Order: sequence, then structure tokens, then C-alpha cells
Amino acid sequence: MKEEFSYIGKHLPVLDIKEKVTGATQYAADIKMPGMLHGKILRSPHPHAEIMRVDTSRAEKLLGGKKYVATAEDAPQALIGGAVQDMPFFASEKVRFIGEPVAVVAAPTAELAEEAIESIRVEYKKLPGLFDAIEAMDPEAILIHEHCGEYSGSSIVVKSGNVCSQTSIRRGDVEKGFREADHIFEDVFHTQSIIQGQIEPHAAIARVHSTGRIEVWTPTTLAFYLRGQLSEIFGLPLNHISVYPTTIGGSFGSKEAVRIEPYCILLSKKSGHPVKIVTSREEEFTSFNPRHSTTIEIKTGVKKDGTITARKVKLVYDTGAFSDAGPMVAGEGAKQAVGPYKVPNVEVDSYCVYTNKMSAHCCRAHGAPQPTFAFESQMDIIARKLGMDPVELRLKNAVEEGYTGPCGDRYLGVGIEEVLLKAAEGIELKARSGPNRGKGIAVGNWYSGVGASGATMKLNVDGTVSLSIGAPDATGTDIMALQVAAEELGLPLDRMLMAPKDTDHSPFDLMSSGSRITHCIGQAVRNAAGDLKAKLLEMAAQQLDTYPKHLEMEEGVIRVKHAPEQQISMKRLALSSHFLAHGPIMGTGTYFGKLGSFDQNALKGFVFDMGEDRAFVAQATEVEVDTGTGMVKLVKLVSANDVGLLINPTNAENQVLGGVHQGIGFALSEHIKEKGGEVLNPHFRDYGMLTAADMPEVECCFVENRNGPGPYGAKGLGEQPNVPTAAAIANAVYDAIGVRIKSLPITPEKILSALKEKGE
Amino acid sequence: MKEEFSYIGKHLPVLDIKEKVTGATQYAADIKMPGMLHGKILRSPHPHAEIMRVDTSRAEKLLGGKKYVATAEDAPQALIGGAVQDMPFFASEKVRFIGEPVAVVAAPTAELAEEAIESIRVEYKKLPGLFDAIEAMDPEAILIHEHCGEYSGSSIVVKSGNVCSQTSIRRGDVEKGFREADHIFEDVFHTQSIIQGQIEPHAAIARVHSTGRIEVWTPTTLAFYLRGQLSEIFGLPLNHISVYPTTIGGSFGSKEAVRIEPYCILLSKKSGHPVKIVTSREEEFTSFNPRHSTTIEIKTGVKKDGTITARKVKLVYDTGAFSDAGPMVAGEGAKQAVGPYKVPNVEVDSYCVYTNKMSAHCCRAHGAPQPTFAFESQMDIIARKLGMDPVELRLKNAVEEGYTGPCGDRYLGVGIEEVLLKAAEGIELKARSGPNRGKGIAVGNWYSGVGASGATMKLNVDGTVSLSIGAPDATGTDIMALQVAAEELGLPLDRMLMAPKDTDHSPFDLMSSGSRITHCIGQAVRNAAGDLKAKLLEMAAQQLDTYPKHLEMEEGVIRVKHAPEQQISMKRLALSSHFLAHGPIMGTGTYFGKLGSFDQNALKGFVFDMGEDRAFVAQATEVEVDTGTGMVKLVKLVSANDVGLLINPTNAENQVLGGVHQGIGFALSEHIKEKGGEVLNPHFRDYGMLTAADMPEVECCFVENRNGPGPYGAKGLGEQPNVPTAAAIANAVYDAIGVRIKSLPITPEKILSALKEKGE
Repeated sequence: MKEEFSYIGKHLPVLDIKEKVTGATQYAADIKMPGMLHGKILRSPHPHAEIMRVDTSRAEKLLGGKKYVATAEDAPQALIGGAVQDMPFFASEKVRFIGEPVAVVAAPTAELAEEAIESIRVEYKKLPGLFDAIEAMDPEAILIHEHCGEYSGSSIVVKSGNVCSQTSIRRGDVEKGFREADHIFEDVFHTQSIIQGQIEPHAAIARVHSTGRIEVWTPTTLAFYLRGQLSEIFGLPLNHISVYPTTIGGSFGSKEAVRIEPYCILLSKKSGHPVKIVTSREEEFTSFNPRHSTTIEIKTGVKKDGTITARKVKLVYDTGAFSDAGPMVAGEGAKQAVGPYKVPNVEVDSYCVYTNKMSAHCCRAHGAPQPTFAFESQMDIIARKLGMDPVELRLKNAVEEGYTGPCGDRYLGVGIEEVLLKAAEGIELKARSGPNRGKGIAVGNWYSGVGASGATMKLNVDGTVSLSIGAPDATGTDIMALQVAAEELGLPLDRMLMAPKDTDHSPFDLMSSGSRITHCIGQAVRNAAGDLKAKLLEMAAQQLDTYPKHLEMEEGVIRVKHAPEQQISMKRLALSSHFLAHGPIMGTGTYFGKLGSFDQNALKGFVFDMGEDRAFVAQATEVEVDTGTGMVKLVKLVSANDVGLLINPTNAENQVLGGVHQGIGFALSEHIKEKGGEVLNPHFRDYGMLTAADMPEVECCFVENRNGPGPYGAKGLGEQPNVPTAAAIANAVYDAIGVRIKSLPITPEKILSALKEKGE
Repeated sequence: MKEEFSYIGKHLPVLDIKEKVTGATQYAADIKMPGMLHGKILRSPHPHAEIMRVDTSRAEKLLGGKKYVATAEDAPQALIGGAVQDMPFFASEKVRFIGEPVAVVAAPTAELAEEAIESIRVEYKKLPGLFDAIEAMDPEAILIHEHCGEYSGSSIVVKSGNVCSQTSIRRGDVEKGFREADHIFEDVFHTQSIIQGQIEPHAAIARVHSTGRIEVWTPTTLAFYLRGQLSEIFGLPLNHISVYPTTIGGSFGSKEAVRIEPYCILLSKKSGHPVKIVTSREEEFTSFNPRHSTTIEIKTGVKKDGTITARKVKLVYDTGAFSDAGPMVAGEGAKQAVGPYKVPNVEVDSYCVYTNKMSAHCCRAHGAPQPTFAFESQMDIIARKLGMDPVELRLKNAVEEGYTGPCGDRYLGVGIEEVLLKAAEGIELKARSGPNRGKGIAVGNWYSGVGASGATMKLNVDGTVSLSIGAPDATGTDIMALQVAAEELGLPLDRMLMAPKDTDHSPFDLMSSGSRITHCIGQAVRNAAGDLKAKLLEMAAQQLDTYPKHLEMEEGVIRVKHAPEQQISMKRLALSSHFLAHGPIMGTGTYFGKLGSFDQNALKGFVFDMGEDRAFVAQATEVEVDTGTGMVKLVKLVSANDVGLLINPTNAENQVLGGVHQGIGFALSEHIKEKGGEVLNPHFRDYGMLTAADMPEVECCFVENRNGPGPYGAKGLGEQPNVPTAAAIANAVYDAIGVRIKSLPITPEKILSALKEKGE
């Protein structure tokens, strides 16, 4: 804890740690309601096929003729999606991936629903499929969406054939830049598709009232966005829809869109019962929204002294059957592609491409880990070629505070030098450590988030203060919000309460996503606390016969600064305001995390504005490679994170550990294996996710420059630890055994094959 | 609708009229939860008896040995009550009335719970009982509470023997006043015990979590008070208790205390299941909290010209076995006892007395209808004796604006003259109308309520505004709150939304009771709207490049006053604040309805401070008495109400009609008949409540002087129409047939007997 603070910097567990550890937490899947039915989704077994006929008569009979079955005929006509609305609720004319919903059934038990699903007969006429994004870009390729130009939203993305969106960046003259270079580096990198891997599957319950009002319980990270989407889909005013966000058992991007909620609503509306759907693990692996696999071609021109003169990057994001967040992810890939380096000549084209696979979505730091793997691997290649220290090469080209990137947006809160030096120092980068051992470093950056957050506070009769925010707690952010409130009010933490969240009561919040909560909710809470404090001091001043400016609040007591024996406790103030005079005391706070400003001449196509406030991270690692088996063992990993200021070190460390865990899996083992559109390993046991026992020693270092846009200079930390891990590991592998693996994951097979090729 | 207003003065139905009329409304009794058990209360069959033994073994066996039975042994030790805490949750050493809880049982069905209740064996040793408050005041009487001086709270009330509380008022020298009088009038009046008669019985559901957290669903009118009481009873911090007020199917005082909620909690805690209790109609009639029966001795000295020189009143309120709200009700009786008249010499003693009957409580205008029946009957007696017009006599003595009453509190917002004249005019008081027909008038007064209310508002993404208040809607107050908000914001009513209410989210509110909501919530909403509006205008001014003071809001649009083509809609402002800049816009409002200030030398004993803002009502009626059967038929009733300003005339008329309905029942027919502590008519069919068909023509007149403390000068109206009805009818009966009935209800038997005594 910093000395100037009472609650900021305290090591604290998440609020519901006890419930979570003892199993008392009620997740959406645990909710039961009287008369509740269980829903199951019938999914396409074909990656691409025409639907000739859907016969639900046997299912209807099995369910006693009740209105418990729904298909495209019952569904709203609306198509959904992020930038482009291209996805129907049910396939009707054709299916586009194995796992696409065709029908949905509710029944008193999940078993009966499953039986009913199996009894539905669908006649398909198979079509040829596309399973490779590069092939799908061929103008001669078959079309997955025949009329994609007609989709709502399609005008804001560049599109033709199976290319769903294109985002392009131009700065300077890239050919001139290459001509000025002493060396040209050209490499192609591949990254695989991985799942978010959250333990809790998708689960939702909907209750539709006879008045039409819809209530939804779901572990969403964006309750207000979901409400807005449901309002459009079902053609209802916002106030006819209540979203109750339930405890989130992991998201990492998997719970930040409209997913199974509309099916629950549709069935509840039809049946008159509440309906719950909980997806199976196999459905999670085959039908839900993994990280985009990519192919990245990167060409860089460098002078002898290491100065980068030009960089040209082509990125292809395989978005699967529907666009979902694809244009946003690929757009972010474009923004990230040249890295946090000052490059005068830039040409970037990032494509989001349809294939007959499940739709990809955001996965921790959407769009960024893939190009970071590419350019940070190449930075290592460049450093070795030039005989430069890899940190030196990076610092020579690193962006500086206020630097305007190629999109026209600035870099604010630049901590790149500090994190690189800390990570290098932590791993003793220059010291060699043994045979088949090697060290590598990489740097990445993310944002501190943007957009609207609100907070309200009320003083309760007992002198406690209730805080209300609309951001579901996906990562322990509630305790952060309470710490900020306690700090501002000088009220002990155990007297700060977090109100339950729902869209009717809670102040609007954009989303619990994109590393924005510490920044935006933190500031909204600070503003609300300021508002409440001003009112408390005003009232205390009346009672103590002085002016607010002469008062201070500490430990739940308001006292006169120069005469501290003149004081009034919050509890007394609360009693007095509730029962003697004045009335209840409440405060509100609002905040908007600043958007960036792009140069429309430099940037074309779809991007999501993440603002200009950056958070850097450098990771350095030591690996030991078994050249006999090809196994890569991480000895140690140092993650140096530019966090502005630590509000809750325990939670910050947890974020870093979690990010690194996912980053190592991305680098070495996780992989959705697919053939002809079919997922071959739809289970954790064959998927390659790390267990706790697989984790190396991880050292978390934090740079606290207080240069973030959040409270007291804090920054976002949710995504950044996941960004450079794969590149750091790939660089360490090269350092250990001299082979460069440009395709993730870095499997033993690839290592052995590379060693063989190298002639060992 | 007043021309200067857009939404104030509009005739509007209550918000949920459609759901109520179609039966879609979900009341507490309709709520079902998974695993929910049904609770039943075992009640004492004896009015006064020692408990020798309680044997629940057969019930436990019947329930499979589960922890579904609770008695005094399981209950919190806390005693409950309003001013005096004298009531245990279960009788343990002795029972004090027929209906007192002895045990409680939960079972999967209500039938099984009933069976289990019946299987419990309790051995009693009967004790002599007291069923008459006057007898109970005898110092030689047996004691109902042996150690009442030890009860918490007992120090603030004067107490001895079976007298639970005494409230006394002294002004001037009453004996001197009587000596100065030309005439002395001495009368004794009796009023009976009546039920509140709400259609919805008591019902509650409690769910106690394994963490100890308590959730309660109940049709309470005071959610925050209930939460506070449960917090004390169960020794939990406030934030461990959530109260969700459910739709209220009538209260009139019956739902403004802790009632069956603790039994639900106790059973839920023990069983681990949610537990619902819904009381039967018989329990409502025999165990719940009717209006106090009273005996009122009133002696008044009057000069020849009608000037009152002195008044001495002794009131005895029969509070039953436990004090409950008794001291407050009897205290209010003392404050009301001299009437709204300038009396220089006053002596009032009001006693609240224990008997072996069910505990009495508040019933629409607590404590006031009883003394008003007494003094307004006597005013009629005086007028006839002096040969004065009854209106003239009243106006001669009536209080004036700012007059300080005998307790030391002022009369503010005095509309007595206007309502008396309007009522007299409406009934054509001076015109005789036929044989056995007569007319009568009476005046009463109530308050506009006191205490804390809060309101918050948030602008939603779609440009609607959500209003959140903590006051359960017992009488259609939600629509009033929305009207005030719409008026202040210039936003169409259909874009104003009312958020659901609960103690976690809603701003604190003292209670939906005592005619305070229009005043206190109305002002809190007005303040919140002002706060929100200032923020909206500030933001609009930025966008329109002007200053807030140059803007006006109307019909959901903000425009520049002198250039109305420069405008921005609320919807656009909402989109902009949520997605482009600024953040969510919220407002808060707080209000405290002013308390009065009593002269501690003049007033001794317990009173509840209802403030100084008054609301007057005069009612005049014409009756026709059948001298053969003794039946009184109301031909017409005029109720002239001093409301300050009408916010929603429809709702105001409904309030008056409801109050008059209950007032007529109180006057003529309603009566809990009791013998030896046993209620003889525990059903609506024998009880005497009026049906809609029994209602006379009722003319509602409103005086709108805008002299109330509420928004735009409005006043409370909830209780006042119930206050003078009985006296007006009794006076009309005398006018019709020359007999004075001083004991309510004015039954045919009493009329016939009086006629007989009179010699007809």
C-alpha cells in the first residue's frame, strides 16, 4: 500500500472469494425457477449444405403437442452481428458451419429436450465447403454468403467475395522506405484458432411475461449492450427488457455478445415458461467463437543501425461462417500490425474472411496477440541479423510519449522503455544459462479502454455506503471500485457495499471488456464519491457550525481540521439525515473514457476506437528445449507491466498470471484441430490447455508511472499480459536451439521437424 | 389539467391498472420458488393462559424429522413493538390473546403444514382475562404484562398496571375555563374495533442463504423500516438483508409493521428452503391489528355566543395484548382531541390500555377518526343547544393559519373555512328535504406527512428516463411521481419509467404511509429532476454552443429559446452521452418533510411527530332513517378536501371514495364482535363491510389553495377523507330523527332502542 493512500494499493481478494471457493456461488446454470423448462439446440452436422426440409413433428409429439419447439419460422427476422449483421438465429435456407443452430427445443428435463432434438429430421443437400481463409479469398471461390453486400452494416466495411471486411493503413511511401533500407526482412507467420477456455459454459434463463416483458439472467459482461440488442431483435422498448448479469465463471471475450439468450427468450415466449439453456462442453468447443486463426505476411526494411524505414503487413483473419466481431478484430490487427515503433512508411491490409467454420470472436486482447507474435518474432530475427541487442533494437525504434501512429492516433502513457528494461533485467537476458536453454523477450501494448461508465452511491441508515455500478464483475473489478470509493470517502472498506447489478437500476456501463473497468468505472466511482462527499461535508458543516472546506473525512468520521475534537461520525450523520432533517444523501458520478481520433486519409475500413491511452507490457522468458522429444519447458517468465498505479496488487498479479497462462497455451499447446470444418478435439483432454502444474515460475513486475487515464493514474491491465507471450517464447526457443518456429503452437513435432531441416 | 402544466392535473389511471384488472398482477401469495415450503402458524385458542408444555414431536414425525418446526426456543430473543418492545415472536410462558403465535411449521404443501400444526400438543393453564379497557385500568385488575416496566422503550411512555402509555396535554386552566363558560357539555362516546379490510391478506416469502443473507418478498408499505427491524431482530448488518416490496393489495395500516416476515425467515433459516406464509381470512380477522376501540369522555365549556372556553378530554384506546402502534395511536388521539379549534384551556389525557384481545394498530388516519367522531358530534350538540348554525359555530372557533395548538405545534396550510363552506353548499345544508331525512356536517384534519424521501433518475440510451424511488406504491403514488418528473423535465409521460423497488437499489424512503408520499416523494422527485435537467441542459448547451440558461426542454426536445430551430432531442443527447462523450447522465434528489416542534411543558408522554402541515376535510351528508327498521340510508355525501393542488384528479377521487367507503362502514356497519376475547364474526359475510352497491352518491370537491408543502403546493390526501365521516353521519341521523347515537356503529338496533327511549 502506498503511504499516501489508505485503501489504494492494498492486497485484497475478490469480494465473493469465500462463496467461490466453497461452491456456494450461484451461477446461471444453478438457477432454478418454478415451471422452468430446459432448452437444447439442434445444430447442423454439415459445414455447408442446403436445408431442404425441417420436420419437427416427432419432437412435437414427444413433447405432448406443446409449443416447445422453435425453428427459423418462429424466430425474429433480425440478423445479428457486430459491424455487419449477417447471422440469422436459425439456419433456414442453408447451413454454413458444423454447429449452426437449426432448431431449439424446450422440455421439462434436459434429457427429454435432448431426446426431442434427436428426433427432429432435417434433410440437407451438401455443398462444397471452404476451410482455409487464403483459399476463400480467391475471387473464383464459391460464395459462403451469396448476398453479403445487402447485409446491414456492410457499407462500412470493404467487401467482396468471401472477404467480410478489409482495414487498410497507409503512411508515407512504403516502396521508397524499402529502397532506403539496408536490409529487407520478409516472413510469414501463422497463428492457430484457440478457445477462450472459460470454465463456465454459456448459460442463460429467460422469463417472458404475459405482458411481453422479458427478463434474462445470463453471465454477460455487457448487460446494457445485451439489453439494447434484445430490444432491437424483439422490437421492444428498452424498459420491457431486464438483464440480470449473473456471476461470471470466466469470459475472456466469450461472454461479450448476444449468444444463447434469444433462444431462451423465444422458447419462453412460445411456451409461457421460464427456459434455461446451458451449453455442453462439446458445444463450447464446436459452436462458440474462438480466437481468429491468422496468416500474417510481414516485410520490414531496416538500416544498418537498426532504424526501421518501412513495414508492409498483410493480415488474414479467418472469421468462420459469420462476421461476429471479426471486422473489429481484424481492424485492431491492422492497428497493431506495425508494432509500437516509429515507422515512417507503412502499408497494412488486414482482411477478415468467411470460411465454413464456427465464427471467431474476441479472445483476450482482440486481434493483438497474432500480429504481436509476427512483428516481435521478426524484431528478434532483425536483431540477430544486425548483431544488435534485442532490447536496444526495440528502444531505438520505440514510440515516444505523444507519438502519432500511422492511423493518426497518438500514443499516450508510453511506458515501453521501463517495461523492456525491467523484463530484460528480471530474466538476466544477456546471461547464457546452459545447453538447449535460451532466453527471449517481446513487447506488446494494449489500451486502458474507452466509453461511458456511471456510478451512484447512497448513504444507508447505518452509516454504510452502497455503491451501484453497471459493470458485471468479470475479473474482480468490484473490489477495485470499492477501494476507490473508500479512499475518496475515507470510509473503512467494510462499510462500503456493492449493490447487485441489473439494467433497471444500475447506471449505464458500456461493457466489462477491453481493459476499461479500472479506468472508466474507477473514474466514475471517484466522481460519484466526490459528489457524495461534497453533500456529506455540506451537511456535517451545518451540524458542526463551520464550512465544508474546514472539514476532513477519515475512518468514517468527519472532523474540523484545526479542531479535531469537533467531529461527527458517518453513522450519526446518516441517522440525522434519514430521521431528523435533510433526507437521504446520494451521489452520482459519470465518466467517458476518451476516444481517439483517426486520420481518415490514413485509415480505411472498419476499426473499433479503443482510445489513445496505452498500457505496455514486456515479457522475457527462459526455456529449455528437449531436442530429443521437441518439448519446450519454460524455466521462468518475467512479465513487466505498465499499470500506471496498482490499486489492488493481488488482483493485478492474478490478471498477469492468467494472461501469461493463456499466452503460454497459445504459444505452445492450445489448438482447435479442425478438418473439413469438423473440430477433431472438442474436449479439454485433447485440447492442450495448461494446468496449474504446467505453469513456470512467473515473476510479475509493475511499472507505476501514474501516467494512466484511470483513478490516480492507473491503467487497464486485463488484456495486456496476454499479448507478447508467444513471441517471447518463440524468441527464446530460437535462442536455445537456433530454430525459428513461425507457426503457433510451437509443438514438439514442429521443433523436431525444424531441427531435422536445420540438419540436427 | 391546469393550463400552466403539461402533466400535473391530468386524469390518469394507476400504472399497473391493466395487470390488476386482468388478474396478471403477481402478488406475494402468487410467488413460487423452487423448493419453497409453505408455513402455517399455530395460534393460541385461549385469551390468557399459562403455557405448561409445547410438544411438537408429532409434527416433527409427520414432517419426516426435518427441521420444519419452530417455537419460542428457536426464535430470536428480541421483543418487538413500536414505541414499547413488548411482543415476543412466540408465546412461551403465557399467551395473552386468542390468536397469539405459539409455533410455526413449514411443509411442502399448505395442507400438510396445516395438518402438522394441528398435531402439535400445547398444554395451557387458563388465566382470567381482561376484555374491557376501562376495567383493565383499575389498579386492582390482574396484570397482562407482569414486568412491563422492564420493556425496552417503556421509559418514554408513562405506564403502570395495564396502562401501556399515557399522553397528556395541558394548556391554560381548564377549571377556570369551565367557570367562564355559559354552558357545559359532557358526553361520552364509544367507537368500535374495525379491521383495515384490505383484500390481500398478509403474505411473505423469505429465502435465507447459506451465507446468512436474508431476502424477503412482502407487500410492505415500509421496506426500509422493515429492513432495519429485521436487522435488529436477527442481529445482521443492513446489507445482509434485502427487502423486495411486492404489489400491495390494500394496506390502510395493516402492512406497515413487522408481521409474518420473521416467521418465514426463521423457518427458511432452519429448513434451508424458501418459505412462504399466506394468512387465512380468519387469521386476518382474529390475529391482526384492527383499529383501536375507544371510550372518549369529552367536556366542553362554551359561551352563549359559541366561543369555546375550555375542553377536557379523556381518551381510552384499547390496544389489546401488545402495544404495537398503540402509544402512537393514542398519542395522536390526544393531539387530535380538542379538534381544529382555538381552545384557550385544555386538559387531555389519552391512555393506551392492554387487554386480552388481538393487538390494535394503525388504521387509516391513526388515532384521529375516534376523537373526531366525539368532538364533532359534540359540536353538533352545542350548535343545537345554542341555536347556532353548525358551520358558523365551527368557523367561530376554527384555527387560523399559523395558530399554535395546545401541544405547541402550529397549524400550517389551514383550509378549514373553504372545506366547511364547500361541503355545506354541496349538501344544501340549510334546506330540509323530507320526513326522516336529515343532514349533518363534520370537519377533520390530517397532515401532509414528514420525513426522508429520495429519488434518483437516469437517462437511458433510448432517451427515456428511469425514476427510482424507495416508496412502495400503496395507493397509486407511482404515477404521481412520474407526473412530477415529466412536468419538470418536459418529457412525455410514456418516456418516464419507474424502476422496480428494493432496499439495495432504491433511495431510502421513510414509509408509504401517513399521507406523506405526494408531499415527500413528490418533492424528492422534483429535486432529482432539477438535478438531471441541469446536467442535460449543460450537455445540450455544449452541443448547441450556447448557455444552459438560454435553453428550454419540452416534449423530449431541448431548444434554444430565442432560436427554436436550434435543438437537440433527448434521444440524440442520450446516444451522444452514452457513446460519444460525457458518460451516462444521472440525477439525485433528496427531501425531508419538516417535523413539528412540541412544547415539552404542554405535552407529556409519547407522540409521533407528524409535522405542522395540515390538510382539512369537511364532509356533509344527507340520510334517510327508516324508523320502523332502524336502517340508516345515505342519500348523498359531499367530501370537500383541502388538497393544495390536484396532481392526478382520478387518483384523488379514488382516495376520497375509498376513505368515505371506510368511513361509512365505521359509522354504520363494520364491527369486530368479540366476546371473552373471541372474535364472533371472523368473516366478511358477518362483518358489515360495505359493498360498492351500498355506496351513496359521493360528491368530491377539492380546494386548491396551493398551500401545501408538496410539489406545486400539493398536500397529502391518503387519510383525511376517512376522518370526519362518522360524525357527519351521526349528526345527520340526529337531524333526521332527533336521536343522538354516541356509540359506533350506528346500528338499526341502537336507533330503534334510542327511538324507544325517546318515546317514539
